[in-house]
Amino acid sequence: MPTLYYTLDNAVFRNFLFYAVASILKMMIMSPLTSRQRFEKNAFANPEDIPLDERKTTRPDPDVERIRRNHLNDIENIVPFVLIGFCYIACNPNATLALWHFRIFFFSRLFHTFAYQIPIRQPSRALAFLVGFVVTVSMTAQILFQVY
Amino acid sequence: MPTLYYTLDNAVFRNFLFYAVASILKMMIMSPLTSRQRFEKNAFANPEDIPLDERKTTRPDPDVERIRRNHLNDIENIVPFVLIGFCYIACNPNATLALWHFRIFFFSRLFHTFAYQIPIRQPSRALAFLVGFVVTVSMTAQILFQVY
Amino acid sequence: MPTLYYTLDNAVFRNFLFYAVASILKMMIMSPLTSRQRFEKNAFANPEDIPLDERKTTRPDPDVERIRRNHLNDIENIVPFVLIGFCYIACNPNATLALWHFRIFFFSRLFHTFAYQIPIRQPSRALAFLVGFVVTVSMTAQILFQVY
Repeated sequence: MPTLYYTLDNAVFRNFLFYAVASILKMMIMSPLTSRQRFEKNAFANPEDIPLDERKTTRPDPDVERIRRNHLNDIENIVPFVLIGFCYIACNPNATLALWHFRIFFFSRLFHTFAYQIPIRQPSRALAFLVGFVVTVSMTAQILFQVY
Repeated sequence: MPTLYYTLDNAVFRNFLFYAVASILKMMIMSPLTSRQRFEKNAFANPEDIPLDERKTTRPDPDVERIRRNHLNDIENIVPFVLIGFCYIACNPNATLALWHFRIFFFSRLFHTFAYQIPIRQPSRALAFLVGFVVTVSMTAQILFQVY
Repeated sequence: MPTLYYTLDNAVFRNFLFYAVASILKMMIMSPLTSRQRFEKNAFANPEDIPLDERKTTRPDPDVERIRRNHLNDIENIVPFVLIGFCYIACNPNATLALWHFRIFFFSRLFHTFAYQIPIRQPSRALAFLVGFVVTVSMTAQILFQVY
């Protein structure tokens, strides 16, 4: 009988599901945060969205843009992590090693968001980005070694 | 014999493939729509792209930017849906419940695009966004309940 | 015994893993390239990132923006390719046909990046984009034929 990796019986996959879903949820929260900030600052991207201003003129706002850059940075990092993660499962990595990859990635991105939005002085955010980036590259390297 | 979820014999996965692929295709269509609008308005992002203007000056255009915001909003919502969807399959959800999640998501995003591009007055687009968002969060909640 | 598609024993999946991971890695490289350009041009997106300028004023730079547009274009194309690719595996495509889809996609995106950053005169970049786009649409069409 062949071994199945993509089932909840596989601890690696189960842990991956938890941290992948948690990371995606963290990324998705940026959408309502952006909306809230747009209403607070009355700074909208589309004329039809503006409730308070009769002239319906859109304008950028530095705090809205900060959240949007954070969201885009999440897309640039969390989406690759989850995609690479699905590939990583098929390589049947050591369960403990894999779990620490997932954990460190998730918490580095959580810290990255706080470092971006408070903001905490640099190089906090840069280091948080770097940790998450290195985790994903490490998973990538392990896949390439096994596949090639 | 273990049950296989990621096969076409599994109705949930088969339905997921259809709606996931349809949603991604909808998202990808924004690329040629952007190009067409750039040529119509002669508004390009790179100097080397400009065919008509001798001075090769790039400039933004509100209609091009509207399609680009729509595209980015698709990335922010459709990509998480598909990633969460792959995780959801492993939790073996009720087939009818899952199908309605996929269906409602796809049609909410289709309507969102029309609401954005026509544009239909608010809160049409906001509601379309919200419906798709809630569907993805519902799938996320079901995964977390089963995994944790 | 049911056939398993998502294992390294399946040549299609093995080849997919290689090219999917290579494409994602190519996309991820845009992040450090952006950072390097921001430091070279002293053009940062956040006031707290600026090391050299006492006034802490952010400003855009055309070369930074070029890399960022390249990165976003990768997200718009490589992420759909990988997502569609995972779906494609379940349809058990012909191994040679699938391999050429993956290969052509990866090299079209690699060439796209060089065409964007050197830059090579148009329509080089437009053609590179088009080739990758057509490959993904071809995979999509094969999935829809099999699923529907």
